[in-house]
Amino acid sequence: MSDTPDGMTLAELAAELGAELRGDPGHRITGLATLQGAGPEHLAFLANPRYRPQLQETRAGAVLLRPEDAADYAGQALLLANPYLAFARVSHRFDRTPRLPAGVHPSAVVAASARIDASACIGPQAVIGEDVVIGAGSIIEAGAILHDRVRVGDESRIRSRVVIYHDCQVGSRVNIHAGAVIGGDGFGFANERGHWRKIAQLGAVVIHDDVDIGANTTIDRGALEDTVIHTGVIIDNQVQIAHNVVIGAHTAIAACCGIAGSTRIGAHCILAGGVGVVGHIEICDRVQLTGMTMVTKSITEPGSYSSGTAFDTSDNWKKMAVRLRRLDDLAQRVRRLEKSAGDQAP
Amino acid sequence: MSDTPDGMTLAELAAELGAELRGDPGHRITGLATLQGAGPEHLAFLANPRYRPQLQETRAGAVLLRPEDAADYAGQALLLANPYLAFARVSHRFDRTPRLPAGVHPSAVVAASARIDASACIGPQAVIGEDVVIGAGSIIEAGAILHDRVRVGDESRIRSRVVIYHDCQVGSRVNIHAGAVIGGDGFGFANERGHWRKIAQLGAVVIHDDVDIGANTTIDRGALEDTVIHTGVIIDNQVQIAHNVVIGAHTAIAACCGIAGSTRIGAHCILAGGVGVVGHIEICDRVQLTGMTMVTKSITEPGSYSSGTAFDTSDNWKKMAVRLRRLDDLAQRVRRLEKSAGDQAP
Amino acid sequence: MSDTPDGMTLAELAAELGAELRGDPGHRITGLATLQGAGPEHLAFLANPRYRPQLQETRAGAVLLRPEDAADYAGQALLLANPYLAFARVSHRFDRTPRLPAGVHPSAVVAASARIDASACIGPQAVIGEDVVIGAGSIIEAGAILHDRVRVGDESRIRSRVVIYHDCQVGSRVNIHAGAVIGGDGFGFANERGHWRKIAQLGAVVIHDDVDIGANTTIDRGALEDTVIHTGVIIDNQVQIAHNVVIGAHTAIAACCGIAGSTRIGAHCILAGGVGVVGHIEICDRVQLTGMTMVTKSITEPGSYSSGTAFDTSDNWKKMAVRLRRLDDLAQRVRRLEKSAGDQAP
Repeated sequence: MSDTPDGMTLAELAAELGAELRGDPGHRITGLATLQGAGPEHLAFLANPRYRPQLQETRAGAVLLRPEDAADYAGQALLLANPYLAFARVSHRFDRTPRLPAGVHPSAVVAASARIDASACIGPQAVIGEDVVIGAGSIIEAGAILHDRVRVGDESRIRSRVVIYHDCQVGSRVNIHAGAVIGGDGFGFANERGHWRKIAQLGAVVIHDDVDIGANTTIDRGALEDTVIHTGVIIDNQVQIAHNVVIGAHTAIAACCGIAGSTRIGAHCILAGGVGVVGHIEICDRVQLTGMTMVTKSITEPGSYSSGTAFDTSDNWKKMAVRLRRLDDLAQRVRRLEKSAGDQAP
Repeated sequence: MSDTPDGMTLAELAAELGAELRGDPGHRITGLATLQGAGPEHLAFLANPRYRPQLQETRAGAVLLRPEDAADYAGQALLLANPYLAFARVSHRFDRTPRLPAGVHPSAVVAASARIDASACIGPQAVIGEDVVIGAGSIIEAGAILHDRVRVGDESRIRSRVVIYHDCQVGSRVNIHAGAVIGGDGFGFANERGHWRKIAQLGAVVIHDDVDIGANTTIDRGALEDTVIHTGVIIDNQVQIAHNVVIGAHTAIAACCGIAGSTRIGAHCILAGGVGVVGHIEICDRVQLTGMTMVTKSITEPGSYSSGTAFDTSDNWKKMAVRLRRLDDLAQRVRRLEKSAGDQAP
Repeated sequence: MSDTPDGMTLAELAAELGAELRGDPGHRITGLATLQGAGPEHLAFLANPRYRPQLQETRAGAVLLRPEDAADYAGQALLLANPYLAFARVSHRFDRTPRLPAGVHPSAVVAASARIDASACIGPQAVIGEDVVIGAGSIIEAGAILHDRVRVGDESRIRSRVVIYHDCQVGSRVNIHAGAVIGGDGFGFANERGHWRKIAQLGAVVIHDDVDIGANTTIDRGALEDTVIHTGVIIDNQVQIAHNVVIGAHTAIAACCGIAGSTRIGAHCILAGGVGVVGHIEICDRVQLTGMTMVTKSITEPGSYSSGTAFDTSDNWKKMAVRLRRLDDLAQRVRRLEKSAGDQAP
């Protein structure tokens, strides 16, 4: 639950969301909450049908509801077609993330050649390299480090301790969470009689507009050409994206995924947590990968894909594992039985 | 091996650990070591029976031993019921982790509204936001960043480059290792006709007392309510804990695990490395998960669980993988054989 | 593609690489590119035979080629035995990674007792602890933090926001990428009636010469003895190496691998992405592990090893998973069929 001192009235909320109001227009909402956790000062929402039973018992000041769900509910409500989306939109009104003042903090180190828009904010202990460009309204938080020639568009927020290496480009309305590393060297080495010889990574990373990147995620710079994250992509924490990967627009990548070098992932894909994708393949648009799937070759048809084995008690799992090692043997024994049955058939 | 200039005598060690001393009370120990690596200036220990053969050849100045193991050993010893626990306790006497002086380093940036206990230490280049509270004896190391309204209890140590976002709470005697990010936004988005709309993450992270968190681990803030890490939990490096997860008291989570959103893990559980747990499920108390297990639904019985396949040579594995894809076919063939055998039965 | 203002002539490139030049010695190359992306100002290369068709259509100013591949190609070329290695070598000539000036940036905090070679560079906001030693030509980038008594050899580059804990040693010509944490405490705890008691981690991390470590990778300090990374090892991003692990010389570890405590990995091994290795085992020299393999016991023979299941559509995968849970049952049914067939045999 999050509360703002002043809040909004139901009339104000209805106007902002284009909702039909059922209840007291002057009722004041100071925070959002779940149906179960809400009090009279809170706005709640019903999106997932499995929470419908909580509707009868909620103490919420008002609920975001579909009109078809409102019949069962006697309390105050804001009626609209997509309560979850309305909740997403209104959530930002109750966000307590500190707003930072425009200007450069005196402890930041900013190269004289950097061009920082007057409305941008450079936080304490940040470091801004030569010829960096920061657009209007963008925020570079405490401890972030932007190396030479990095460009950041407008209204982006680069959070604490993010590092962006030289020559990388970040679009507008991009969020990059703490500890992410953008543009580190790709893992490129040539082997010379058993010794690894490093290949300089000459490309960069290009991040288009409206991208969200999670904490401690790493996106490597390209070897020759760029690593590219297209518009509207959302990436969770601790994701690894190797050099020369291309992620198509509006694709979502959950935490702990790893995408190996030069792989291209299409638009509107969804990768659940812990997915691994080998290098040098292509995944087409609108592919879903379930958690911890290992993708070893290209996918050319939209749809859902999986790998792995279901979990079980360790005792059962051990039996299964032993049988699995002997699966080839089992298949051959079935083949022999079939042959012998065929011989016996009349 | 770690040595301190002055060290402790066996008499002092025996007194501190409540051990029975067998040997010269004045013998001076300046470091700890394995049975194999120890010299006369070292204290070693025997906990795991498979190292018992090393006891005969150790050059250790003294050995922490169970009384029942002492019969086989003629050297100096400190006898007690739990040598491993005694070793854990005495290890801190030989720790060379720098002790830092109380006070605020002149290069740190500390908001005027922050309340820092006089006995606390704020290291170089650290950043402390508005209304932050730091308790007695706590250490905020070099480069750590605590955003507005973060609270840290007593005797906690926030190591270099940790970031804690606004409004998160950290208890007493908590260790958070370098690069961890506490309270980054959860991965919450609503989909509007193919575009992801961010949901402001209004909850925080609450970390209770005596918790240990590893390097580069990420724990996201809750969407509406808080993400909670209960008392005595230990979490290793590069673990990802999503929004609204609750981890029960005294649970241990090894490196590279990922816990998806809103999942509740019980008390006294042990997750080995690389385990993945899907969102919105519950795992009861006293569950053990072996390495790289993928947990896809709730677990209601204590015990050990596993998934995955045993490793093999890549050649054998390829054969197995092909057979596995045809497992449904194999099962149907066995069914046909059974039917046909049934028809032939007298 | 990466361009330098001045570039090199083909004659200069041929001399530097020991290549046979076919074409205009004065032709100027200002960047490297792929066969497909190259223009007349670029040098390209052909190493992988599957790109040979691109040779006919490339607009590259010159191509690095094996003599046996040159017959098919009429354009300018530099002929030599190993084009990929030549490309690796020449790539550094076109690298735009900022060169940093020797000396200590005024915003850095450097202990008076630290010994920094006059040719070394300490970047903005860096923190250098007591008795740290930095060798000739080494670069400590912006925001890196080296705790007390860390030693770094010559010509190493510690990139932004790396943290190296006290007493760790880094050799010469070592690269450590942004956000890596070297020498955090190993995950060592003794259990006392359900409560975890921390064991002080008294060892350190020793990194030998010519090692490359990726962004946000973590390498824990040893419990008693040291964690050791031998010469020429290359480690990608987000790899976790636990306490007392030893990695043999010239081994390559791709992104997202996790190596549990006290495991020893041999020399010249290759771990693909996402591999997990349990603790307290040994892997011999020249072992390859394919992506996401789970290694649960020692490997004593060189060769390639794998685990996991091939991915499939989620529908097929669900069928397979159900069959797999009943594999033990299936095997017993086959056994019964065999017995019954044996009884029926004439």
